[in-house]
Amino acid sequence: MRLRRIPRAGEYIAAHPELAVVGGEELKGNWQSLFAAAQPIHIEIGMGKGGFINEMARQNPAINFIGIEVYDSVLLRALEKLVAQPLPNLRLLHADAANLQEVFEQGEISKIYLNFSDPWPKKRHAKRRLTHKHFLSVYQGILIDGGKLQLKTDNRSLFEYSLWSFNHYGMAFSDVSVDVHADPEAYPDNVMTEYERKFHGLGQPIYLLEADFKNR
Amino acid sequence: MRLRRIPRAGEYIAAHPELAVVGGEELKGNWQSLFAAAQPIHIEIGMGKGGFINEMARQNPAINFIGIEVYDSVLLRALEKLVAQPLPNLRLLHADAANLQEVFEQGEISKIYLNFSDPWPKKRHAKRRLTHKHFLSVYQGILIDGGKLQLKTDNRSLFEYSLWSFNHYGMAFSDVSVDVHADPEAYPDNVMTEYERKFHGLGQPIYLLEADFKNR
Repeated sequence: MRLRRIPRAGEYIAAHPELAVVGGEELKGNWQSLFAAAQPIHIEIGMGKGGFINEMARQNPAINFIGIEVYDSVLLRALEKLVAQPLPNLRLLHADAANLQEVFEQGEISKIYLNFSDPWPKKRHAKRRLTHKHFLSVYQGILIDGGKLQLKTDNRSLFEYSLWSFNHYGMAFSDVSVDVHADPEAYPDNVMTEYERKFHGLGQPIYLLEADFKNR
Repeated sequence: MRLRRIPRAGEYIAAHPELAVVGGEELKGNWQSLFAAAQPIHIEIGMGKGGFINEMARQNPAINFIGIEVYDSVLLRALEKLVAQPLPNLRLLHADAANLQEVFEQGEISKIYLNFSDPWPKKRHAKRRLTHKHFLSVYQGILIDGGKLQLKTDNRSLFEYSLWSFNHYGMAFSDVSVDVHADPEAYPDNVMTEYERKFHGLGQPIYLLEADFKNR
């Protein structure tokens, strides 16, 4: 997601250190200290305005969530929402996905969500896709044993690429859907993102892939 | 595909041993003897009335094709077509997919096509799906090293199951598409089956998965 640059974003984020962390390297191995209770941590990489992770945090009080976003002008929107209605199990992080092994210890994260990530359609930009093997290796380095990576997207090419990339990385699929909304009973706990609502409304299929790094 | 039982099918097939083989165990290791030239052999398992494999044989004279069908009343239709217009590189086989290791030697087959196979949607029938691990093991036992298995289907559940099944069997994906016809230039050599024409005409996506048994 791109928004216009908002000059006050950095200042606003810095003013709410109890809810939003910048960088995060100093918290490596100690993320539970940010939350009211020590419980499994799920992260969303590229949370955008935070609609998904905010709703997930409300519906799952026994899980701690961290919403990660690289653009501070976007993270600002999620933070404003959280300031207005604080949640004990949701914190935000302004960081780049490529650096997450400097931010989280191996086993500190139980699940990773990628929702409607930038598809980077050009072949020469494949390395920037959040499902490129370089990123998979980063995720593997922070997840618990058997921890899952879940991707949702409306983008056909990103989904096909991710199936290929996960498969060739040796990941084991735990869930695959080429139309999440085809059967209304298939995903009763599915939380829609803003993109998902839009593209599903346009009649486009939403794709889902969940896998872990266990040896098959 | 199911057709009504045609009593004369067995008799007609038996009367054309130069074009259609019944069983085939006696040809194990010697299938090239059926063809005008010794060249790679591709098989289709569940060819139905044979439209796909007939067209493939016409377009690819440097490949030998064997169309396999378990229902003789269905194979009859493919055979009648072949009798009317013989092709030097197409033969038919009346056999059950589960027995193919008794029919072909390891390395005798270079590629396997599964087109619009019966999805067997009930969980208790999963073992009958042609992409169940039991069948994958049979295919692995007859293919050349690096030989590919290609699936096309309009059936969402069969496709999702097959992605899962191939992945958990340790197969390496070489091609994945969740909409073969989305980009008209993506599959210039795609030969449509009767089912494909029908379901594509109804606006439904056609799914494709190709993989091999190489270690990743």
